[in-house]
Amino acid sequence: MAQQLADKRDLDFVIWEQFDNEGILAHENFEAFNRKTCDMILNEARKIAIKEVLPTMGEGDQVGLIYKDGVVNVPECFHAPFELLKEGEWGNLIVPVDMGGQGAPNFIGAAVAEYITAANFALNGYLTMGNGTANMIQLYGTEEQKRKYVKKLTASEWGGTMLLTESNAGSDVGALESSAVKNADGTYTLTGNKIFITNGEHDLCENIIHPVLARIEGAPAGTRGISIFIVPKYFVNDDGSLGDRNDIWCTGIEHKHGITASATCSMTMGARGKCIGYLLGQENQGMKIMFHMMNGARMHTGFQGLVNASASYVMAVNYARERIQMRELGQPHDASPVAIINHPDVRRNLLWMKSYVSGMRSFFQYMEYQHTRSTLAATEEERTLANGIYELLTPVLKSYFANRGYEVCVQAMQVFGGAGYTKDYLVEQYVRDAKIASIYEGTCGIQAMDLLGRKMGMQGGKVFMTFLSAIQNTITEAKAIDGLTDLAARADKMLNKFIEVAQAITKNAVSEHFKTAFAHSLPYLDVMGDTIMAWMLLWRAVTASRQLAGNPKKKDIAFYDGQIKTAEFFIRTLTPGSIGRMEGIIDQSSAAMDIADEGFGSL
Amino acid sequence: MAQQLADKRDLDFVIWEQFDNEGILAHENFEAFNRKTCDMILNEARKIAIKEVLPTMGEGDQVGLIYKDGVVNVPECFHAPFELLKEGEWGNLIVPVDMGGQGAPNFIGAAVAEYITAANFALNGYLTMGNGTANMIQLYGTEEQKRKYVKKLTASEWGGTMLLTESNAGSDVGALESSAVKNADGTYTLTGNKIFITNGEHDLCENIIHPVLARIEGAPAGTRGISIFIVPKYFVNDDGSLGDRNDIWCTGIEHKHGITASATCSMTMGARGKCIGYLLGQENQGMKIMFHMMNGARMHTGFQGLVNASASYVMAVNYARERIQMRELGQPHDASPVAIINHPDVRRNLLWMKSYVSGMRSFFQYMEYQHTRSTLAATEEERTLANGIYELLTPVLKSYFANRGYEVCVQAMQVFGGAGYTKDYLVEQYVRDAKIASIYEGTCGIQAMDLLGRKMGMQGGKVFMTFLSAIQNTITEAKAIDGLTDLAARADKMLNKFIEVAQAITKNAVSEHFKTAFAHSLPYLDVMGDTIMAWMLLWRAVTASRQLAGNPKKKDIAFYDGQIKTAEFFIRTLTPGSIGRMEGIIDQSSAAMDIADEGFGSL
Repeated sequence: MAQQLADKRDLDFVIWEQFDNEGILAHENFEAFNRKTCDMILNEARKIAIKEVLPTMGEGDQVGLIYKDGVVNVPECFHAPFELLKEGEWGNLIVPVDMGGQGAPNFIGAAVAEYITAANFALNGYLTMGNGTANMIQLYGTEEQKRKYVKKLTASEWGGTMLLTESNAGSDVGALESSAVKNADGTYTLTGNKIFITNGEHDLCENIIHPVLARIEGAPAGTRGISIFIVPKYFVNDDGSLGDRNDIWCTGIEHKHGITASATCSMTMGARGKCIGYLLGQENQGMKIMFHMMNGARMHTGFQGLVNASASYVMAVNYARERIQMRELGQPHDASPVAIINHPDVRRNLLWMKSYVSGMRSFFQYMEYQHTRSTLAATEEERTLANGIYELLTPVLKSYFANRGYEVCVQAMQVFGGAGYTKDYLVEQYVRDAKIASIYEGTCGIQAMDLLGRKMGMQGGKVFMTFLSAIQNTITEAKAIDGLTDLAARADKMLNKFIEVAQAITKNAVSEHFKTAFAHSLPYLDVMGDTIMAWMLLWRAVTASRQLAGNPKKKDIAFYDGQIKTAEFFIRTLTPGSIGRMEGIIDQSSAAMDIADEGFGSL
Repeated sequence: MAQQLADKRDLDFVIWEQFDNEGILAHENFEAFNRKTCDMILNEARKIAIKEVLPTMGEGDQVGLIYKDGVVNVPECFHAPFELLKEGEWGNLIVPVDMGGQGAPNFIGAAVAEYITAANFALNGYLTMGNGTANMIQLYGTEEQKRKYVKKLTASEWGGTMLLTESNAGSDVGALESSAVKNADGTYTLTGNKIFITNGEHDLCENIIHPVLARIEGAPAGTRGISIFIVPKYFVNDDGSLGDRNDIWCTGIEHKHGITASATCSMTMGARGKCIGYLLGQENQGMKIMFHMMNGARMHTGFQGLVNASASYVMAVNYARERIQMRELGQPHDASPVAIINHPDVRRNLLWMKSYVSGMRSFFQYMEYQHTRSTLAATEEERTLANGIYELLTPVLKSYFANRGYEVCVQAMQVFGGAGYTKDYLVEQYVRDAKIASIYEGTCGIQAMDLLGRKMGMQGGKVFMTFLSAIQNTITEAKAIDGLTDLAARADKMLNKFIEVAQAITKNAVSEHFKTAFAHSLPYLDVMGDTIMAWMLLWRAVTASRQLAGNPKKKDIAFYDGQIKTAEFFIRTLTPGSIGRMEGIIDQSSAAMDIADEGFGSL
């Protein structure tokens, strides 16, 4: 039977053949896991995702949410799979054991999540969003706070959120107006209105714990005066039982382009009585604490791009194998029609999609590898550098996966033709669902500013140099392999041009023309992403070539050869375009800054 | 007040300053029109579109269509503006006078349509689709058929359709199974099922005239054996009154990603009794007659990309001028927040959108100019060549506008941030509506095959050479203008590379590697489109430079300078990427054809 949601063979290739995750498993932190248990976990996740979760995706989208009088009902069909996933503890696989999780390594968590997230993104959010809230409390909470909240959140018994955005404070968090006044008992009374709060209210959990950003009366303006509070929907008694309802309410939900079954709530605090919050960490530490969650949220948002793309690609390639339409190119008029996978433009499109899905999957697992290595590192220096790579590349991953992931979904729709434009196939929903990733958790423009303004110069440029060396190492390996020397030389050319563009833009970013540099920051992020794709695909080709040189199973030969062909397609056909775009950035035209506001027209 | 739907100043610039449409108006065919009447028509269209039509766009999308027992009800709010547009004869502005239209030149028709189509694409379809049916009947029908149908169709009293697609005959028209049997009275009895029929059934018109493709019993297989029939919903008596209901019924409507208020119908013929059709033209002439409508349909589909993009851009730039968020880059933390049009990445994005909207608008008007010139041509040679250019560039326009138009809508959503992902702003709908353009009336892949397989070699390559010369002429003009010499040199470089890629791919297309050539055909179409954009933007810069050298009105200076900055942005920042992609095509990697089917994975 054809695969669904993700290509299992490809996932195995990445986690076991491209990356040394058996080496990770050998570490004492993961003694409860070995390759066999990981295989079992992944197979079970795949089964549950396809059989129990996926059937609710389309229905959830079409039924949508019901909001009435402060209450949000999720689609009825979500309840059964939610309970199943909760009971199976699929939401806390990689959460540390002391927080109530299972302590699995990240790589297997990401592999599992490819299935469950792709099967129903909205449902998965209700299941897992408590982990972010729990992480903040675990890091910054008092012992009492940890005891009260953490394990309930990681067990998906209670939901978690993040109350950040207000109508005049979106990208500009420092402009928020929600306020807090300290009470005699050490608690705070909160007032304010928040918008775009994911899962701010729903009926899947008995309680919801809201981390809320607000300004304590008298605190400095801007981001420096923001504190973070724990605001439970229901107060929690000392014995863990639920107490009174707190004065935090959902006042409405957004009607959205996609992820229509994910509740995007407007929330009000203190409108009906008194909203009580508990300070998390110290006063005015809000931004720092929130950013601990933000990196994970950005990785997860990029991941969304990958899984929507992966599922859409798998559906498209399956459809292309089955859909009979038109004779083969060059055959006489009366020849029989063939499956559309035979048509050159369809093949080009499928290989285009495959190259991005493959590159993104490898890059995501590379990031998880870096992250795990940083936690296992023997020395502080090693830890700092591995963590640096992770931080440098997070904005690239977030923005690039959001945009390329979306484009893959759009191209998958194209493979289905007119049928793809209807709700008869899930690609229609993947297109809409995927679009949000370029917007929330910091738009692509914000990611590009983070990359150019903060990340490029990390540790005096050492992190960036280490990143370049890692690419160079793969190119060097490829050069030594028969059949890859030409691709390696082309990748080398691309890397050199990328170094040139990085130098040009970072130099301009600290000159008087800094605005021009930032006007090129998102295209810069994009070519950095392209370079990473070429790197990952070349790395895959190196791995595949070595396996082919061994004694591969017969059924694996086409798979490995497919890796080499995908690298060839991307590097020979697509990277010249990237190199050209790099030239465009190096040129640093200031037209976007020079044009008068009136010049944009429409006045 | 800010503009809506389209930038009026820009439209005026294109039709009166970039192209010599006053010269067109001087022709005797258009003696009823002069510049002043054209201005009045356009202003009136703009007013009606914004005040009467636009308010129904969002509601129409959200209410959608109601299908019950073969009847389709359009959104209630459509009825009033439909009557208004019908009474004002806004649907037949460019239809020849002898067909009941007003005989206006195409350029003013396109300008008017920018407003009315952008204000409500679905509604405009009900208004104008009869023209395509009327054109076929006018060209191929008997005198009786012309008398019965044409003027009712062009007056929007009756609707028109095109029954082509069947579930196993989409791109592959020749596979259709609908059949016709000749009756003793010369009529035909039709049976069959069609899908994806736009406006196949609705309650805005008292009758609908369906052109139907079907195979007469015993006719050859494939496209050679297809005939076309006129199948009225209600028979038409000799006195023009309506007779009995014919046996053609809507059996359901599609639930779609966008254009949800446009009825996409499944139709069945002969299921309840007897479906009678009247042969149009000769037997087995169906494909030839249908293709007369197809070119116009493809132009109109490309146009849809332009107008969705134009409206989305105007909304985005207006929003960017009003939305206050974050301080200016480089200002201290306590500086006041500014409108987001000040932020470099937002400016880059707006200018990116503007460059495509501007280039597409100019290119569309260029095509209308060619089309009108071909009808007014003094010699057969001139007519053939002008018509050749129009035919050569139609598939490029259709596919390129569909894709770039869609991308502009998507980028407009990005400017709105989280709000853009909600249904509070129309950009959300433009994104969904725009997507269809890459699929219907021949997918982008089909357009690319048409370009490479049929159009490149038209008239022994003479048409293509003439097209190249036209670009070269603009470059030569630009070279002579101070301030444009650098841009002209860069455009020249691009044109030379484009000639190289055209040679490489056309050569490969007739070799044994023809499948590889066709695997690069859509990227080839895209770089041809990029070259045309650069040409059009340079042409605009030439026109604007000349106006600036004159004595422009003060308020026009920023507008003209904006043209030059837009050309600079596109040519300096974006065309290097296109040139790079041309290198990728010239390389003609065969990876997409070489990879084994199993290599695509997901098995």
